[in-house]
Parts: sequence; structure tokens; C-alpha cells
Amino acid sequence: MNAEIIAVGSELLTPYRQDTNSLFLTNKLNQLGVEVSFKTIVGDRLADLVNAARSALSRADIVIFMGGLGPTEDDLTREAVAETLGRSLQRDEQFVEGLRARFAERGWQMPENNARQGDVIEGADLLPNKRGSAPGQWVQAGHAGAKKIVILLPGPPGELRALFEEQCTERLRQLLPGKHIATRELKIAMIGESLADKRAAPIYKKHTDVETTILAGTPGEVQLHLRAQANSAEEAQKRVDCLASALEDEFDDTVFSTQGESLEQIVGYYLEMRGATLAVAESCTGGLLAERITSIPGSSRYFLGGAVVYDDSLKTKLAGVPPLLIAEHGAVSGQVAVALAEGIRERCKARLGVGVTGIAGPGGGTEQKPVGLVFVAVADGVKTEVLERKFPGDRERIRHWATQQALDVVRRKLM
Amino acid sequence: MNAEIIAVGSELLTPYRQDTNSLFLTNKLNQLGVEVSFKTIVGDRLADLVNAARSALSRADIVIFMGGLGPTEDDLTREAVAETLGRSLQRDEQFVEGLRARFAERGWQMPENNARQGDVIEGADLLPNKRGSAPGQWVQAGHAGAKKIVILLPGPPGELRALFEEQCTERLRQLLPGKHIATRELKIAMIGESLADKRAAPIYKKHTDVETTILAGTPGEVQLHLRAQANSAEEAQKRVDCLASALEDEFDDTVFSTQGESLEQIVGYYLEMRGATLAVAESCTGGLLAERITSIPGSSRYFLGGAVVYDDSLKTKLAGVPPLLIAEHGAVSGQVAVALAEGIRERCKARLGVGVTGIAGPGGGTEQKPVGLVFVAVADGVKTEVLERKFPGDRERIRHWATQQALDVVRRKLM
Repeated sequence: MNAEIIAVGSELLTPYRQDTNSLFLTNKLNQLGVEVSFKTIVGDRLADLVNAARSALSRADIVIFMGGLGPTEDDLTREAVAETLGRSLQRDEQFVEGLRARFAERGWQMPENNARQGDVIEGADLLPNKRGSAPGQWVQAGHAGAKKIVILLPGPPGELRALFEEQCTERLRQLLPGKHIATRELKIAMIGESLADKRAAPIYKKHTDVETTILAGTPGEVQLHLRAQANSAEEAQKRVDCLASALEDEFDDTVFSTQGESLEQIVGYYLEMRGATLAVAESCTGGLLAERITSIPGSSRYFLGGAVVYDDSLKTKLAGVPPLLIAEHGAVSGQVAVALAEGIRERCKARLGVGVTGIAGPGGGTEQKPVGLVFVAVADGVKTEVLERKFPGDRERIRHWATQQALDVVRRKLM
Repeated sequence: MNAEIIAVGSELLTPYRQDTNSLFLTNKLNQLGVEVSFKTIVGDRLADLVNAARSALSRADIVIFMGGLGPTEDDLTREAVAETLGRSLQRDEQFVEGLRARFAERGWQMPENNARQGDVIEGADLLPNKRGSAPGQWVQAGHAGAKKIVILLPGPPGELRALFEEQCTERLRQLLPGKHIATRELKIAMIGESLADKRAAPIYKKHTDVETTILAGTPGEVQLHLRAQANSAEEAQKRVDCLASALEDEFDDTVFSTQGESLEQIVGYYLEMRGATLAVAESCTGGLLAERITSIPGSSRYFLGGAVVYDDSLKTKLAGVPPLLIAEHGAVSGQVAVALAEGIRERCKARLGVGVTGIAGPGGGTEQKPVGLVFVAVADGVKTEVLERKFPGDRERIRHWATQQALDVVRRKLM
């Protein structure tokens, strides 16, 4: 079985907006063993919608429309699908009364155009939408030998997700007997995508029963997505676990996550588990390291805070770096990274202190200290480690690389 | 004239990857007066590619393929377009020799499969690619009355953009005589999208000669995109400028940008213009405010740095907030925001100091101090202003709203 996903909305054909719902649906469909063969994005014109529906029905078993189910004149997905299938639209008066009652509960009168949302394609099932006013529709079409399923879903992501998970997943599963899918996601730190692929390929190529996708995540992160299909859930799980374990052996302690967690989540787990606290003093990353750490809910349990020491005077005032050290070695040096880590650790009374200094560019580089040069240090009160790295890319990528390196150093310290 | 954009690549049909090239192309096509009516995403199977090409040629005047032009067996866009048009592929030996020479210059032998990149669709023009090995192709098809233009572009964004701008834009313009497009982008701070639309609609609805799109940007930012088409460049410009000026009157000093600049860029301009410096002490935003400011190249000229004071002890140690003040009013209070702004200003010897404290959630809220409550203060040594806000959304949105508010307060202070 293959599927086509059609995103409806003229705003999705501007330079400013993009369909993202299809990534969610693709994931869910893949888990059911359904491949997505085409995605189409189409505006709100009826003729274009009918054209897209016709193409999709000619080439996919399952066609899912997202959007165009609202109450306004622009919302024409119902009309387009009915026309394409040669069926009529019939207003479900019971649904309309229910909707009218929902409005009344809030003390509002239902605008009459809302009744259009109860126009049901002949033979379709309405899929109630608890989170919004536009219900979905489930239509069976085609003929024996070429059965088609057409699903209409509302566009707002929260409504679409809930409606698909609660009312479509199980129903689709029953039409696809004997398919069981298992997935795993490994994440690797501080190895480039092509090197990771070179090392992983000889392993995953032996596991022909697992589909492997290697992707670059945030700079300094490579993701290995594994997916297997089998006649039982256990067998599918066994297949992905077997490959995951072989890849873990190969990549050893560079694997920081085996269930898709982010590096900042993993660092948080470790800190909490060890009852440890962290403080950071960052120069070139300008707050990004603290921002990534505090993006995790509950991070106040292990992250104390720190300083953004952009100006050299603040390296001294906020993190206690001796001015002479800066004068002698330069602000971008291993010595200053060490002093930042030790200084912020002491000042904040944290178990671990991290110091980051470097040149994010585009300006400020020299032959000795080029753009991309970064020093990362971590202090624990006993020993301070420092790393020197040269990261590729533009300002944004260099800053991301540097924070990834800093988080990875903390992870290794706590392992 | 309308266009269809086809993104080629099986990785674009996984849950992990998305086409983004089409946003760039849509913008460029819109500037030429060409609307994009459909976008299709298709994998690397020849039959699917032919199917997509056939659909597109039946419904669009300009069809642009992105990707599938490389040297590997998976790269089948050339074959698919040739088959759809009923034309042959002919190897351009001169091109292949040139490619072989480019490899040789680097001391490499060209792998033989690279020669496929010189397979030209009968009647097509090769579009040389300076940045990569896969050239584009420009094909004219159809018949008088229904002429079609088919353009094949390489997938890597850098190659695609350069190739389209350098070799396709002018050529398309010549086929679309007399079309002149002008655009403007206004950005508004701290007004919601629906309120902005309510205030803007009566104005832009009078300007029927300009197409207006209202979009929510980062939380706390609304974008007004204006686009006009006319027979001369001056006339088109006059039309967008006239509406832009009416909108500026309506939104007054909430408009922070009239050429698409970000709020952090604008704040940077103002600080440099005034020869002023800035320091920040942030709690709930956890480094995001500093990160946004330092994402701008050259920000070290006006941003000194600051403190991420997650733990209450650091509010005292790094920003000099009296512990009694925290005990009396709580860490999330206007008083503490003021003390943070004044304390960090003094400690960093900055012209302006900003303090942010609040509850980003999901935990930590109370009835008196709910999730989303944020205090932002700005101190200039003479007067300290403080704002109390209740922002909607999840942790990430609340943190973004708070930094947007802080940046906007600084902007207004400098205006």
C-alpha cells in the first residue's frame, strides 16, 4: 500500500509558509507499513484541487487531504473530493445541530457558514473533531482490486494529529493485516555525517531486513534511523535491536542517545542522576549554551546559571579570569577557557564549570587564530580538561558546533 | 503564467527531511509575476517521476525540477523528463571532457558514472554549474498556444540558487514582458496576528492593487508582506510604498522594521548609532536573550555580555540583587527585574541594563504567579522602567515572547 499526502492552502504556495503536518503523517504511516510515494501542495482553487485529487487517486491507494475543511468560501476540499469521486454532498443536520449547541454553550450564535462543515461526501464517515469545529471524513472508494481510501483531515496541527491518532490509525491497521513495524533512533556526537556513514555502511548493509537512514542533525550530531517490518511485533523489534546493538559497538561512547533524546536532555539526565550542578561561562557562543541547557523543562534542578562574557572585562568581573592571562595568551586561548571554567565553577559554587571561548566570525579571524577556532574547558575541582577545535561553517554553525562540543564534554565527564 | 515546482528525492518522503528550496524559487518566481500553483514531492523511482512530470505538464506553463541530476543510478530526472516529452537523451561529449578536466585539475580521476551528467534532453540547453558537477537543463516544449518551459536544477541549495539566479531569471523575464513587481516587508512588535489583521484589513482592502499577506513570525512579531505588479518598476514601487506608508501610520511605533530586518538587528543598529552598550541579566529566558543579540555579526561592538541567573544565589552574586528583596517579593517580581537591570548595568559598566524574570513553565506556576508571567526591566542610570506581561503558549513560546519584549523595550528606549 502506498499513500499520497495533499496539503491544501494557498498560503502554502507563498515563499513564507511550509507544510509541516506531512512529516507527522509520514511517520505515522511508515509505522503502519505504508510508504508515502507523493506529496502535493495545492491552493484553494476548486479546479486545482480536483486536478490534484484526480492525480492522487490514479497513483496512490491511500490519499490524505490536510486542510480546506473550515467554514469559509475558500474551504473547498469537501467539494473537490466529492466532484472527483462523482458523489454528492449531503448536509448532516444532526452534526450541524450539535455544532450549533457547542457555540450556544459559550454564549455565541453560530455563524451560518459553519453549517458547511457538516456537508458529508456521499458514503463517507464523519470523524468528530473535539479540538475544533471542522470534522474529518473517511471515504472508501475505488472498486474490488483497486480499493482506495480517502481521508480528509483539518489543517491545524493539534486537530490533525489528535484526529489521525484517535480515529484513523487503528482503522488503517485493520486494513493492513500482519504488518508490524519497529523503529530505533541512535544519535552520535561530534562525528561528521560522511565519516559516520562510512563506518556504519558495512554494518547496516549486512542487515538487509532493516531500513537505515543516516541524517545530520544539529551541527555535531548524526542520527541513525532504523526501521524494520515483520510479521510479529517481537520479530520487528528484534531486527532493529540487533542492528542498533551492532552500531552501538562500532560507535561506542560517541553514541549519546538510543531513543532519540537530545544531547541537552541526556546531559540533564546525567546531572540529576549524579546530584550534580553545572555553571557555564561562554564567550563566542553568546548564551546559546545556557539557552540549550535551559530549554529542557526542570533544568533549574541542576543548572545554576552563568555568565555571557562577550567583553573581555566581563571575563574578569563575572568569571574571575586574571587580566594578565588574557593579555598574555589572548582571550581566545586554552588558558582562558580553563580560567573561565574554573572561575565560574567557583563563583557559582557548582560541581562542574564549563568555559567556552572562540572565534565565531565572520570577522575577527587571524592566521594564527582563524574563524572557527574554539576552546572548550570543563572543571570539576580536581582536574580541568581543555579541548581545542576548528569548526567549519558560518557563524551560526560554528556556535552550534561549539555548544555541542561543550555539552558532549560534560556528558563524558559524567559517564 | 503559472508554475509547478517538483522536488525530487526519496529522502524528502521520509519523516525527517523537507524540501526548503521551493520557498526560494517561489519568491523568485513571484518577483517575476509567476504564481506557483502546485508543488509536488516525489521519490527516485522512474515511474513516479514520469507520473509527476506528466501531471505537471498538463497543468502548469513552467515546470521546475529540483534534484535527481547527480551521477548515481538513483538520479533519474533527466531520463524521466526525456521519456515524458518523448525525446531522446544525447551525451554531450564536450561537457564530459570538461568535467573530466575539472577532476584532473584536482589530481582525481573522474568516476565513469559522472559522464551521465552530460546526458542532455534532445533540444535542451545545458546550464553550466560552477559550484558542482551536475549542470542544469532548460527545455522548451509544448506547441504554439500551449508553450511549456521545463527547467532542471540541481538539488544542493547553493548550486540551485546560483544557477537559477544567474541563468534562469533573466531568461524567464524576457518571456514575460511588461511585468514589474515590487515588494515591501513591514514587521510589527508585540501585537498578536489577529489584532494586527483586524487593524490592517480596512487599510489594505482599499489598496486592491497590492497583494498583502499577514504572517506571524517569531512570537511577538507580525510580518506584513506587500507585493504589487505594474507595467513599470516605478509604478509597482509606488503602489507598495503607498500602502506601506498607510500601514506605518496605523501601526506607528510598533513598526520596527520596514525592509525585513530582525528585531535584534534593529536593536543593534540603534545601539551602534547611539554609541551605547548593553548588558543583560536573564532568568527565565536562560540565555536566549543574549543568544539572539549575539547572533548578529559584529554585536561585540555594543553588547558587553551579562549573566544567566537561573539559581537565586546567582541573582545576588552576578547581578547584585539584595537577597532580602528576593525574600520579600519573590524571584519573579517587578522589584527583582528592576534590581537585575540596575545591578547588571552597574557591574558591566554598560549604558543600558536589562533584567528578565518570569515563569516559563511547564512547572512552577501558582495562582498568583502563573506560567507565562514575565517581568522585563530596562535601566539607563537615570530611570528604570519595568513591564509586567502574561504570555501565552508553551515553554519555548513564552521564552521567545519574553526576549521579544525585552528587545522591544530596548528599541523604544533608544528611539
